[in-house]
Amino acid sequence: MKNRSNRLLPRGGAALLALALGVAPLVVRGQAVDLDMTDRIVDEGQRHGEVMEIARYLSDEIGSRLTNSPGARKAEAWTQEKFRGWGLANVHKQGFPFGRGWWMERSSVRMIAPRPLALTAIPISWTPGTNGVITAPIVFAPMTSKADFAQWKGKLAGRIVLVSSIDDIHTPPAASRLSADEFARLAVYEPPKFSSDGKAYLEKSYFFPRQMEDFLKAEGALAYARVTKRDGKLVMGDGYRFAPGDEAPLPAVEIAAEDYRRLVRLADAGQAPTLAIESVVHYDDSDPQAYNIFAEIPGSDPKAAYVMAGAHLDSSAAADGAADNGAGMAMVMEAARILSKMPRPRRTIRFALWGAEEQGMIGSSAFVEERLAQRVPPAEPKVGANGRFWLHSTSWPIVKRPTWGELSVYFNLDNGSGKIRGVYAYRNLAAVPIFQAWLAPFASMGATTVAASDNTGPDNEYMQMVGVPGFQFIQDWNDYGRMHHTSMDTFDHLDADDMRQASIILASFLWNAANADKPFPRRPLPTEPSRTGPAK
Amino acid sequence: MKNRSNRLLPRGGAALLALALGVAPLVVRGQAVDLDMTDRIVDEGQRHGEVMEIARYLSDEIGSRLTNSPGARKAEAWTQEKFRGWGLANVHKQGFPFGRGWWMERSSVRMIAPRPLALTAIPISWTPGTNGVITAPIVFAPMTSKADFAQWKGKLAGRIVLVSSIDDIHTPPAASRLSADEFARLAVYEPPKFSSDGKAYLEKSYFFPRQMEDFLKAEGALAYARVTKRDGKLVMGDGYRFAPGDEAPLPAVEIAAEDYRRLVRLADAGQAPTLAIESVVHYDDSDPQAYNIFAEIPGSDPKAAYVMAGAHLDSSAAADGAADNGAGMAMVMEAARILSKMPRPRRTIRFALWGAEEQGMIGSSAFVEERLAQRVPPAEPKVGANGRFWLHSTSWPIVKRPTWGELSVYFNLDNGSGKIRGVYAYRNLAAVPIFQAWLAPFASMGATTVAASDNTGPDNEYMQMVGVPGFQFIQDWNDYGRMHHTSMDTFDHLDADDMRQASIILASFLWNAANADKPFPRRPLPTEPSRTGPAK
Repeated sequence: MKNRSNRLLPRGGAALLALALGVAPLVVRGQAVDLDMTDRIVDEGQRHGEVMEIARYLSDEIGSRLTNSPGARKAEAWTQEKFRGWGLANVHKQGFPFGRGWWMERSSVRMIAPRPLALTAIPISWTPGTNGVITAPIVFAPMTSKADFAQWKGKLAGRIVLVSSIDDIHTPPAASRLSADEFARLAVYEPPKFSSDGKAYLEKSYFFPRQMEDFLKAEGALAYARVTKRDGKLVMGDGYRFAPGDEAPLPAVEIAAEDYRRLVRLADAGQAPTLAIESVVHYDDSDPQAYNIFAEIPGSDPKAAYVMAGAHLDSSAAADGAADNGAGMAMVMEAARILSKMPRPRRTIRFALWGAEEQGMIGSSAFVEERLAQRVPPAEPKVGANGRFWLHSTSWPIVKRPTWGELSVYFNLDNGSGKIRGVYAYRNLAAVPIFQAWLAPFASMGATTVAASDNTGPDNEYMQMVGVPGFQFIQDWNDYGRMHHTSMDTFDHLDADDMRQASIILASFLWNAANADKPFPRRPLPTEPSRTGPAK
Repeated sequence: MKNRSNRLLPRGGAALLALALGVAPLVVRGQAVDLDMTDRIVDEGQRHGEVMEIARYLSDEIGSRLTNSPGARKAEAWTQEKFRGWGLANVHKQGFPFGRGWWMERSSVRMIAPRPLALTAIPISWTPGTNGVITAPIVFAPMTSKADFAQWKGKLAGRIVLVSSIDDIHTPPAASRLSADEFARLAVYEPPKFSSDGKAYLEKSYFFPRQMEDFLKAEGALAYARVTKRDGKLVMGDGYRFAPGDEAPLPAVEIAAEDYRRLVRLADAGQAPTLAIESVVHYDDSDPQAYNIFAEIPGSDPKAAYVMAGAHLDSSAAADGAADNGAGMAMVMEAARILSKMPRPRRTIRFALWGAEEQGMIGSSAFVEERLAQRVPPAEPKVGANGRFWLHSTSWPIVKRPTWGELSVYFNLDNGSGKIRGVYAYRNLAAVPIFQAWLAPFASMGATTVAASDNTGPDNEYMQMVGVPGFQFIQDWNDYGRMHHTSMDTFDHLDADDMRQASIILASFLWNAANADKPFPRRPLPTEPSRTGPAK
């Protein structure tokens, strides 16, 4: 940091912002903007970029990185190698309790009566294999709560049970860019809503599935099948019984919507179809810890707070985890590579690749608990994985860790390969003019909007909840909605131009954050909200 | 036909047409329109309609109807039963030479190195099974002509050969309705273009694939794989070696675009992946004939020409043939059912379900050759299946059959489940005002456009080529472009409202055609075109 001549928002940029945002030009005092490195960062990302090669390796060569699977282990090792190769410091992995590894060797689900037909299906992650071929007629027995069990009692023995209803299949839109209307909506401040205590969510997503599996087992069902909640012959197979001792008591598969619905119609119309299911899967209990990967570019001022960017390393099991979240990982790693070529920043710039995001942001929550703040877990209900339901806790107060103040600002990427169109300020209104200034050079690349609004998760969410500024970018959706978690989430669907743009803007944001005069402004530490105010 | 009071185009309709089409009001002399039955037809189709149950049975219960497969045989029997059940006359099947039946029992294509991964793939229709599991490394050896063989000679032994390039994958648009601009384009008369003699097409689609398979076999390749030319993890598997004695010399599979492209990238980047392919398929040589199905509602005037509607009965092997062409079959059958409830028409109304459309409109061409006209086949090249390349013939003259004049007009449906938005006049300009009058009652249902232009095939195409008025409707595409021929072509993707509308309009068109004063106007019998006129 030698040249500070450009540290006020330039007139041109301010005028452009004024035009784009309909506000008076801003000068960001005390958070003056360092634009000197902008074009060096752009040049490094555009003309010497490696983001697509990083994404290709993660997607094609490593592929699925289900937490604690062989793919996740390979990614933990390879990403550290890359960081070291670029000369980053303090490259290491940090473990946290998780559970079992699991991977699929092969599987097959076929209808063999009333006519032979290969179905598109996938074992549900962490469910046991079939130990040979299970051949049995189906029974369509949709269940959404314990109250449904009575209806099916005595009717499931020797059957493959179709447990999903067919009335809530979601057809995601085709690829899309954000529209002017959507940007306008994002810019509007929305008052916070009180979150529920999560008991209903827990009941539905944690306790009921386990009760249902126990019921199916007790009734003598041989296996069960659920439907993919997206159509187009895609499968996902997300499962959650990864904790030691929490193994599902029977094999389970997810069947593509078209194939599942055909089975239901055939059963409704006459004789129940017969399926043959085979699934060969493997558990790996050699290391019950999952890992976050860290690396850093040391700053010149060891007393200044650090800044950080991250993306989750794990993926679902169905394909290669390209858009979710090889893209985000590659952008974060590419930003690290770009910044490794730049002068030393004032603040340390850290990079995090989080483990076990898909199972409830477990890796980033472990980091938050260790480094930022704790809140007392609720007495009931008790559930297995640390962190998974902490989100829904209403326990107070939040207790800062001594290192709470050391993280100045964090940026997360987890929405696929789409271009950065702006950034969510998460109701941190002091952040708005700062982000506007940081975005100003990138208007011609399509990044212009600072959204006052919240965005859901992911790995920045727990940081926001404990008053640490953790942000996520606004990205074009492209075909993320249709693709993420599915068998179609492959390298092909990543957009190279978009990924280069996003890597560059992330690197520039990190540079600005690392070299700002002051740490990033914070919202007050959240406290128990008044329940009387917002009655309507 | 007792009441003819409404046989002139009503003023309201003409005014509406004038408004919609920008032309002066028309009275269709000599082809007066009988509108008396319109609302009875609408009522029967809307309130008592069975089109979706017909489509469900064809798609779910029967499923794939690859020519001469067990599914096609079931459909041949079931459709005749249905026609008889509705009281239609002269229900029968009529055979024509085809070739072998073929069906898939099961198949699996897995990558086993560098990492285990289930690939989405399908055996290519009519290729032999693998007789166990074939496990071998791939080699990416794209070939598009014989000139490519030299490059790969000596490099294919013991390999699974990936023969497709990866540069022409097509991503079909999501579901869409026709736009005003598209209608405007359709309405414009385009002068006919001279078709080529088809030699290049034949070389590419008939001779080259056989030469390539012989080359692969001679080189010691174990199997080959091609890519699906549409993305989204869909597979089609269309194959054409169905003629007796024309069996492919080695197993072949089609791999979904995402999976195929990953294999190519992995091979480019390092070690060739190893695949394990297994395909269990069956041939059926018990009856080498394929069949067209016919049924009719006898007219009161046996000397008047007959009118006809049709759709092809066969489908690709990949899924259930719902949009292609269970939808068209169901609409034609539903029109038959509706009209079976109406008074006796003047002309006989025939219904045809064509066999072997997917292999080159072989069923409808057999009908054309027998009943309408013949043209001398070209001396060279000789190819196996009758009709398949007749389309591209430039041999003249066309010789009418004695029964050429008996078919007044034919309507075809083969574009999925989309609503009828109008009809193609195929440059038969005398047909335009007649169709405008017939469509007038259905403007509020979205059917308004008479397209002067041609539309490619399908089963009406040979009729047009011999001067017999054979038309196809303009339908909304919905998601037909993405779905047809693929593993996703299932009942789920059919649109019930659209299919009811189309059945009703087809029935009404048939009623009007059957009760018109005169047979439908014809273009002149095609003769060898002048080659000097349209030099540019």
